[in-house]
Order: sequence, then C-alpha cells, then structure tokens
Amino acid sequence: MKTRDRIIQSGLQLFNEHSERLVTTNHIAANLGISPGNLYYHFRNKEEIIRDIFTEYRDYMSKRLQAPMAAEVTSDFLSNYLDAVFDTLWRYRFLFYDLPGFVERDPKLAELHHDFQRDVIVPSLIRIHHQLSGLGWFNWPSEDLIGVVLNAQVISNNWFSFERALRPNTPITEAACKRAIGQVLIAMRPYVTSQYRLQFEAIYERFRYDYQDLLAGSDVPKA
Amino acid sequence: MKTRDRIIQSGLQLFNEHSERLVTTNHIAANLGISPGNLYYHFRNKEEIIRDIFTEYRDYMSKRLQAPMAAEVTSDFLSNYLDAVFDTLWRYRFLFYDLPGFVERDPKLAELHHDFQRDVIVPSLIRIHHQLSGLGWFNWPSEDLIGVVLNAQVISNNWFSFERALRPNTPITEAACKRAIGQVLIAMRPYVTSQYRLQFEAIYERFRYDYQDLLAGSDVPKA
Repeated sequence: MKTRDRIIQSGLQLFNEHSERLVTTNHIAANLGISPGNLYYHFRNKEEIIRDIFTEYRDYMSKRLQAPMAAEVTSDFLSNYLDAVFDTLWRYRFLFYDLPGFVERDPKLAELHHDFQRDVIVPSLIRIHHQLSGLGWFNWPSEDLIGVVLNAQVISNNWFSFERALRPNTPITEAACKRAIGQVLIAMRPYVTSQYRLQFEAIYERFRYDYQDLLAGSDVPKA
Repeated sequence: MKTRDRIIQSGLQLFNEHSERLVTTNHIAANLGISPGNLYYHFRNKEEIIRDIFTEYRDYMSKRLQAPMAAEVTSDFLSNYLDAVFDTLWRYRFLFYDLPGFVERDPKLAELHHDFQRDVIVPSLIRIHHQLSGLGWFNWPSEDLIGVVLNAQVISNNWFSFERALRPNTPITEAACKRAIGQVLIAMRPYVTSQYRLQFEAIYERFRYDYQDLLAGSDVPKA
C-alpha cells in the first residue's frame, strides 16, 4: 500500500478509536512508524487527511446508495442494503461523533458535505423510498415522504453523538450502529403495508434493542 | 441588571448571531462596553459563560417540560406547549448549531448535558407521551414509544446543524425552528388517533413547510 493510503487508513483507525480531537498528525506518523516530515510530504495538516477520509466515505456510500434495486425487493435485499449502511456507519464512525463540528471548522469539508447531501444522499434516499413504495412495501402520504426521509437522515447522522452524550466515556460499538439503524426503522415502521408487515418485522428484529442499557440510571416512567 | 447577567445575555446574543466559534470573550466585553479585565473578574473563560447559558437553558426548558398537563389536553394546550419548545430552541439556538461539539470539548458541560438528558429530558418526554396517549391523542405500540421519543429528541437537537450543513452561510431563522418542530410532528403523526386527527392536523399546519427552499438545487426525484 502506498504511504499516502497508509496514512489515511491509520488516521481513520486512530480517529475511530480515540475521536479526532485527541489525535494529532504526530500520533498518526508514530502509529505508522514514519517521520512527521514524511507525513507532511503527503498531507499539510490533519484537515487534509480528514477530507480524504470523507471523500472515501462519500464514494463508499454513493456506490451503495446508487446500486440498482432488484425489480422485486425481497426481504434479503432490503436486509443486505441495511447491512451496507450499517457497515458504512461503522467503518467511518468517527465522522458521526460530531459531524456538525467538522463542517463548522473546515469550510472545504463543509462544501464536500453539502454537495454530497444535496446531490447524492437526499435524492438517493427519496428515490429508494419511492421504489420501496412502488414495490408495495410502504404506503406514505406523499406530502410526508420528504419529511420522513430527512428525519431518517438526521437520525442516522447524529445517533452516535446522541449516545455519546447520554453515556460519556462509553465507546461507540457495533451495538450502537445497530441501534442507529433500528431508530431509522422505527421512523419508517408506521408506513409498512400489511402485505410486507411480517417481512419488515423480521428485519427490524435484527436491529431492535432493549433501551435498558442506554437509559440506565434514568427514571423512565412506566405507562 | 448585574454585570454578570449582562455578560451572559451579551454572550448568548453574539453566539446566536455569529456561532460560538467566532466569538471571543473580548468581543463580548467590547459589545458591553466593559474592559476584558472586568469580564475576567466574573468568568475565567468562554467555557464558563457557555456553561452558565446552558444552565439557564436547562432551567428554562425544565420549567416548560415539567408543567402539569391539563386533565383534558385541548388543541390549544398542545399548541402552546409546542410554542414553548419552539421559543426555547430559538432563544438558545447557538447551542444546537453543534451540540455534540460543545459536549466533546468541555467535560463539565458534557456532565451537565448528560444529567439533563437522563434526569429531565428523556423521562419528561416519555411522561408527556404517556399522558397524551392516556388522553386519547395517540396510540403507539408500547415497544415503540421510547424509540419515537428518542427520535424526536435527536431530531430537535440536531435539526439546526442539519440545515446549516445543507445551506451553508444561511443564518438560522425562526422558519428553521418551525421546521424543527414540524419534523418532530412528522415523527409523531402516524400514531395520532382518528378522534384527534383533525385537531392534530390543525397544529401541524402551523409548523409544516414546503421543502423547496431547503432542497433548492437538489435533484429530488418525483414519485
């Protein structure tokens, strides 16, 4: 692997494990066993590394979002699709520890993120929702569709930071990824047609979770 | 007004207008026409000012969340309640430009935020949802209630940062607050009972909006 790519992979690994704020370019160089000077030959600063990781994330996600949907969406297809989103969230998880902060601090990243949201994420999600609806899975009032899609996007982009706020000092695990997908499925669940109810529930079952650990210590009132 | 309180109010105003990152304690002192030394007599740094604003927000919100609900929830009551949330979001809006970032950078604020979420926000929201349900407004499967409440919380906490990412350089206006509430109502809408459908729709109408401006430039596919 080229040094440049090794720097990106090492940065991604360290950011995921420790959060971006606590990792310097020197940490990344040390982790790779290269000199800081060698790292600076490839990247002028940490922001450039983060931008390259974001670009990688964008391409990774785009490929999955734009994959053609089977003419008949089987339960397996939808399930695999959600696994791909899960996999992407997990792989690039540090980006979602504080996405607004990254965007706020780096105008170039803000532009990348904005273009990606506007040109790929929102249109792709709406297209997928239309397709699922056309295939009989969902039945939403057309005026709610965009609102539901945007909610799904806000939830998946910010779920990790929400968990981190509720449980400080607890690392984001694959269980948190599951919960993120589960929360998106909760937002879609009321619109599932009776025809696909059982298939949807089987998928939801894979991502649902007990809220006990997340809300431990919280005096949650019973019904 | 005491100097200490004037500093808090001036900080809140400047953070709301320009975002916290761009405002220094010197800006706050200059805005008040006091010396930096006078400001430092009251607050050692910007973090202390933000923490005091957060505490003010917490108390302001708690009072509204914990207000007893009328035995019969009229449409006016629910509407006023949403207005109070709207008002709080608007008054302390800078906190929601990048809530995860504030929490990540200041461990003391993280603790305040965490305790507030766990001890007040989540239990209050669940209690209010139970009450609304007991009064016949909503009918949710009990296993979905917490999920819906947490989604509502993630949406309202992060809606401003989502809008800021989609439309950089566009200030957060009262219209964005309306949209935040509207998005929360979309998450609750599928659970409204037919008995209260019309009353709910009348409230929703006040907060709904056309997505055209938010998604301007995005190639949103038609159904």
